[in-house]
Amino acid sequence: MNSLFASLPTTVFESMSQLAREHDAINLGQGFPDDPGPEDVRRAAADAAVDGWNQYPPMFGLPELRQAIAAHYQRFHGVDLDWQREVLVTSGATEALAASLLALIEPGDEVVLFQPMYDAYLPLVLRAGGVPRFVTLQPPQWRFDAAQLEAAFSDKTRVVLLNTPLNPAGTVLAREDIDLLADFVERYDATVVCDEVWEHITFDDVAHTSLLSVPALRERTVKIGSAGKIFSLTGWKVGLVAAAPPLHAAISRAHQYLTFTTPPNLQTAVAYGLGKEEDFFLGQRQDFQRQRDRFASGLERLGFTVLPCQATYFLNVDIAPLGLSDDVAFCERLVREAGVAAIPVSAFYAEDKVTTAVRFCFAKRDAVLDGALERLERFM
Amino acid sequence: MNSLFASLPTTVFESMSQLAREHDAINLGQGFPDDPGPEDVRRAAADAAVDGWNQYPPMFGLPELRQAIAAHYQRFHGVDLDWQREVLVTSGATEALAASLLALIEPGDEVVLFQPMYDAYLPLVLRAGGVPRFVTLQPPQWRFDAAQLEAAFSDKTRVVLLNTPLNPAGTVLAREDIDLLADFVERYDATVVCDEVWEHITFDDVAHTSLLSVPALRERTVKIGSAGKIFSLTGWKVGLVAAAPPLHAAISRAHQYLTFTTPPNLQTAVAYGLGKEEDFFLGQRQDFQRQRDRFASGLERLGFTVLPCQATYFLNVDIAPLGLSDDVAFCERLVREAGVAAIPVSAFYAEDKVTTAVRFCFAKRDAVLDGALERLERFM
Ligand SMILES: CSCCC(=O)C(=O)O
Ligand SMILES: CSCCC(=O)C(=O)O
Repeated sequence: MNSLFASLPTTVFESMSQLAREHDAINLGQGFPDDPGPEDVRRAAADAAVDGWNQYPPMFGLPELRQAIAAHYQRFHGVDLDWQREVLVTSGATEALAASLLALIEPGDEVVLFQPMYDAYLPLVLRAGGVPRFVTLQPPQWRFDAAQLEAAFSDKTRVVLLNTPLNPAGTVLAREDIDLLADFVERYDATVVCDEVWEHITFDDVAHTSLLSVPALRERTVKIGSAGKIFSLTGWKVGLVAAAPPLHAAISRAHQYLTFTTPPNLQTAVAYGLGKEEDFFLGQRQDFQRQRDRFASGLERLGFTVLPCQATYFLNVDIAPLGLSDDVAFCERLVREAGVAAIPVSAFYAEDKVTTAVRFCFAKRDAVLDGALERLERFM
Repeated sequence: MNSLFASLPTTVFESMSQLAREHDAINLGQGFPDDPGPEDVRRAAADAAVDGWNQYPPMFGLPELRQAIAAHYQRFHGVDLDWQREVLVTSGATEALAASLLALIEPGDEVVLFQPMYDAYLPLVLRAGGVPRFVTLQPPQWRFDAAQLEAAFSDKTRVVLLNTPLNPAGTVLAREDIDLLADFVERYDATVVCDEVWEHITFDDVAHTSLLSVPALRERTVKIGSAGKIFSLTGWKVGLVAAAPPLHAAISRAHQYLTFTTPPNLQTAVAYGLGKEEDFFLGQRQDFQRQRDRFASGLERLGFTVLPCQATYFLNVDIAPLGLSDDVAFCERLVREAGVAAIPVSAFYAEDKVTTAVRFCFAKRDAVLDGALERLERFM
């Protein structure tokens, strides 16, 4: 057996959802909305399952979806993509990440990672043969500086793996920080794999900058996106890669042996959805922002210190002011005793863990958020 | 970039389908039926997209589908599976293969492979760090013997990767050959990854034996299946792994970082489909057998030497009697000049290639098969 996978536990999201079911807890752990998702998009998938083609679509994805992806990013980020040579459809953003890392990393290559990081990143980098070099971000700003990059980059750096907007921090990478990073990426001739799945879930008019839209990074960036996140249909597992032709070609080779292709009825529906009016995307953002505000003020009322949140489905509380310093123990008590599941932010660190932040998913109906607040109130 | 993926071409199935489109050829290359697939199963998927849950299902798959898989194999193969500890749903059989190989192979482990082999096998084994050891099968029997196994197995053998029924050969592994293989697997303490995606597409009352149903292999086998193949819905990409708990656990760890999960509406529909009456599966087999017979007799009428076919969507012709020995050149002429796309069987070999067999997919409507025969007749 492979020594890495033989020793790994189940993901924290899955195991916390499992605990939530066992304890009949309100699940604010794993990130998914409890909304059924846009009905017209779901209906488009249903129609295509009945009337459409259910055999293999092209390995790169349906042309109509690849064109829709290019048009969507032209509209939202001003990025010009050649859909035939730069766009690939994957079975979710996780597969896009796996294909990108397996295609770009040669065993022994160094990979710069930013902690907190999504829990798939490190195992994928290691299984691809990469040597991780961490940049550690701290609340409440979760920012890096030049000295940290200087310490992490080396002549062996080949890949930089980044997430913006950043889960779990809820931050959006500022343009000046992108420019600082770009200097290092160019200097060390590296490729950036940028997980931008939260690109549409931003608040307070904070704008997400796609790394593809930054001229210095245009040819060096592998942008990863997720229809599941764009449409709040997290189970659909339709993801995408957008990257310059040489990167796109190598990643497609890995993709063809990881899943080969993605269900055509869902691709058809996502192609339809990406063409929706600006209002739809704005409306979603406003709804999430309202939920964020409702939950944040509830938490504050209970005495929690809520960290700033500009994006994602997630709010973090700082438990240090409560005199606590073990986020894992706190989350175990929360799920068992309070009946509310949350994620300890230390699960997003491999070393130098931040152990005083707890992440709640607020993408839930008012009644669910209020119910969770009531339970937390009883518990506190 | 990773040196393996940077140098690989697009899969032969995709590139041949592409050539077929360019030359307006009848595509008998890539294996998919041109039937829309069972309407009730497609409708079940449509209903679940509209009325069901579209957020993350559990990482292991929907309980109802995992239970349906266990019940299905109990019914068809007499195999008892513990659905909670032995069944995993994946995003297609390709992902099941990738997850299994990444989870089971430690860099440096030897992996025994049987040529002809599906084109994903070798790149996945290599990317996982495995060292391939080939057993080469020859038409028209495509069988191995003890001496070949003796030469391929060693103290470093950890994994054996097998496909039965065998694509492209169209053979089903005989019980005595399974028993011979089992001796080696036990002797060398190896694990067998057995790709059984064609299990339901068998003809002339030839029975497929699942390796899981062989007592000596029950705890050593990772069985891979495919709803796309079982229901002739190749685009759906719903696959499965059935394996003893320790194997299942390690493979699940890889799965959670390759795709995490699979669209719940398709899972719901597959769960429904697996419960269909015996008649449905029998009817499918009879339909494919009729197509096989129609196409085989047509090819024979044209003077082709057709190799025996007990299973799969594929018929092979031996081109040696035509005085030809370059299957790739012949397939290029076929697609360009005859307007019929087929697959050169040498594409399924890494070394010691058989270059005198050409594979046609016969899972097509009568009119398509007849049209292809007419084109071939004009060309010959
Ligand atoms: C794949 S389950 C995790 C979902 C998610 O993005 C999160 O909770 O962070
Ligand atoms: C993934 S495309 C190949 C389909 C197939 O099984 C074949 O043609 O052999």
